[in-house]
Formats: sequence, C-alpha cells, structure tokens
Amino acid sequence: MQSSNKFSLAEAITLLTQTPLTLNALLRGLPDIWTHNNEGKDTWSAFDIVGHLNSAERHDWMPRVRTIMESGEARPFDPFDRFAQMRESEGKSLEQLLDEFARLRSESLAALQAMNLQSADLARRGTHPALGTVTLAELLATWVVHDLTHLHQLSRVMAYQYRDEVGPWSAFLGVLKCAGHRAG
Amino acid sequence: MQSSNKFSLAEAITLLTQTPLTLNALLRGLPDIWTHNNEGKDTWSAFDIVGHLNSAERHDWMPRVRTIMESGEARPFDPFDRFAQMRESEGKSLEQLLDEFARLRSESLAALQAMNLQSADLARRGTHPALGTVTLAELLATWVVHDLTHLHQLSRVMAYQYRDEVGPWSAFLGVLKCAGHRAG
Repeated sequence: MQSSNKFSLAEAITLLTQTPLTLNALLRGLPDIWTHNNEGKDTWSAFDIVGHLNSAERHDWMPRVRTIMESGEARPFDPFDRFAQMRESEGKSLEQLLDEFARLRSESLAALQAMNLQSADLARRGTHPALGTVTLAELLATWVVHDLTHLHQLSRVMAYQYRDEVGPWSAFLGVLKCAGHRAG
Repeated sequence: MQSSNKFSLAEAITLLTQTPLTLNALLRGLPDIWTHNNEGKDTWSAFDIVGHLNSAERHDWMPRVRTIMESGEARPFDPFDRFAQMRESEGKSLEQLLDEFARLRSESLAALQAMNLQSADLARRGTHPALGTVTLAELLATWVVHDLTHLHQLSRVMAYQYRDEVGPWSAFLGVLKCAGHRAG
C-alpha cells in the first residue's frame, strides 16, 4: 500500500486556502432547507458546521500554533469550547458565516506565513489537554484533515435531505449509509 | 424528526450547477500526490472520481431522463459501464477532467431545462435494470445525491493521505474512521 503523504507546509497552506472557496461554491445561495436542516436531534446543519469552522479558526488553530511556538510543552492548549459557535453564529445568515470564514482563514494563513516556520519548527512539541504530546506538524496536518472531515459531514448532511426522494437508488448511494462518525 | 426535503426541480438544478464549482475549488492546482493517490488496491483517487462523474454525465443522467420521457417503463435503462471512465480519462490531466466536467454538466442542465418538465412529468416511470420501477423525480434526486456521495468520498480519500501525519488527533477525526461505504 502506498504510504501516507509526508507533511508539507506549502501543501497544507494550499489545501487550507481552498476550503473557503469550496464551501462557498457548495453552499452559497442554497435555500434554507438545504443549509439549516440537520440529521435529527443533536446533529449539525450546514449552518452549524460553518459556524464551527469559524469558531475553530478564532479559538483553536493559530492560537495553538502560537502556544507551541511560545511555550512548547510547558503550557497545555486551551480546551476547545465546542459550543462557542452557538453564541458567535447567533442572528447571522449563512452568507455572513461564509464571508467570515473566508476572512478568518485568510487572516490565519497570513499570520502562519509571517511566522516563516522552518523544518526544525515543525518538530516542536506542545501539550494537548486530552491527547498529550503533539507536534506542530501534527497540529497543522490536523487543521487540513479537520476541514476535510467537515466537508465529509456536509456532503452527508445535505444528501440526507433527499434520503426519501431517491427511492430505490438509496441502496447504491454510499453517503446515505454513512453512520456519521463523530466529526469534532 | 424533520421530514426529507420534497423534490424540487429548481433546487436540484441549483445543486447540480454548483458541483463543478465545488470540485474546481477543492481540487484544481493541487499536487498530484493529493489527486492521484487512492485508499489502496481497487479504490479510487480524486482523478478517478472526477473521471467517473464525467462518465456518468455522458452515459447515465440525461440519457436516462430521455429514456423515461421517450419510452417510459417499456425500455429499461442501458446498464452503466463503471469502467468506461478508464478509457475516457486516459492520458488526460485532472485539470482537463475538471474542464470537461464543467462543460458536460452545463450541457446536461441546458438540455434538462429545455425539456420544460412539468409536475406530471416528474411522476413518469422508467425501468432500472437492477432496481425495477423508478420515477423521473427519483432519477433527478439521485443525480443530486450521487454528486454528494462522491464529494463525501473525495473528502475521505484526501483525508486518508494525511492519516499518519495527524498523530494522536486521528482519534478525533471522523473522516478517518469512515469505512468507505460503496459509493457507486
């Protein structure tokens, strides 16, 4: 089997740059029933998912990069408040959240590039409050995969809205069988 | 639990219009290791998935719409050749496949809109070679969910390329736990 791609800062930045464009193409202008319906009690709609990405952008990714660079393993990351997004998204439209995501991501990546990280920096260590020791490269790779895990969730939540409309084809449509792995 | 969205031709066309833009934003310009690596033996890369969408666009969706409108249940759909894409994608770049997808999808939707389908048409029936009786509305809803099932697959295949790079975070990343429901 082919091995995992090795972490590359330049590639990670390319992937992270494309996510706001992808979500914009996928979601902007859709009727609310496509973006505000979820998969049932205690699940997230597309609106909630974009709100979560904004919240992670504000409180998680670059703050944790800075914690590693400034304090190493000595200071654990602040725990991520999974419900901050409820307050931060309140009263906004999906279009506003998408605009916010584009702006926040662009600011995050400008700040990341300004740090001019070298290979040795990527091996620096930090302390995750639940997972223990992690490296800066692992944090940055996780940022990329976190985008993808939520794109995976978005496509599933949207497909779910037509679960009854596809009739017998549901047997052939893998996304309708996805059990909804926790995507946090 | 909220009910499934009811099929809407206008909404389906909006969703189908956005897919080429979404794939373009997600994939164009990425290094080959992100778009040509797969999940192991007998699985698809991003390149293969876009080739499959092109193949479905050529041989499946609008040809089946026409079969229903012209022959109803009397003539079963032609079976879908899942390997036509290998021939049709050979020697092309991902960028060429993305351009093709945008063109083919645009042509499909122009032809669909030119049919000026009415509510009564959406209830027309056809015969799927394996699934039996299906309606035109089910075919069109399946077209939408088929796009989403492959976006779901794409996000999983891409995330897989960093499966080792995320370190202990893999425990929190749902997409890395997706078993890869058959997405045909």
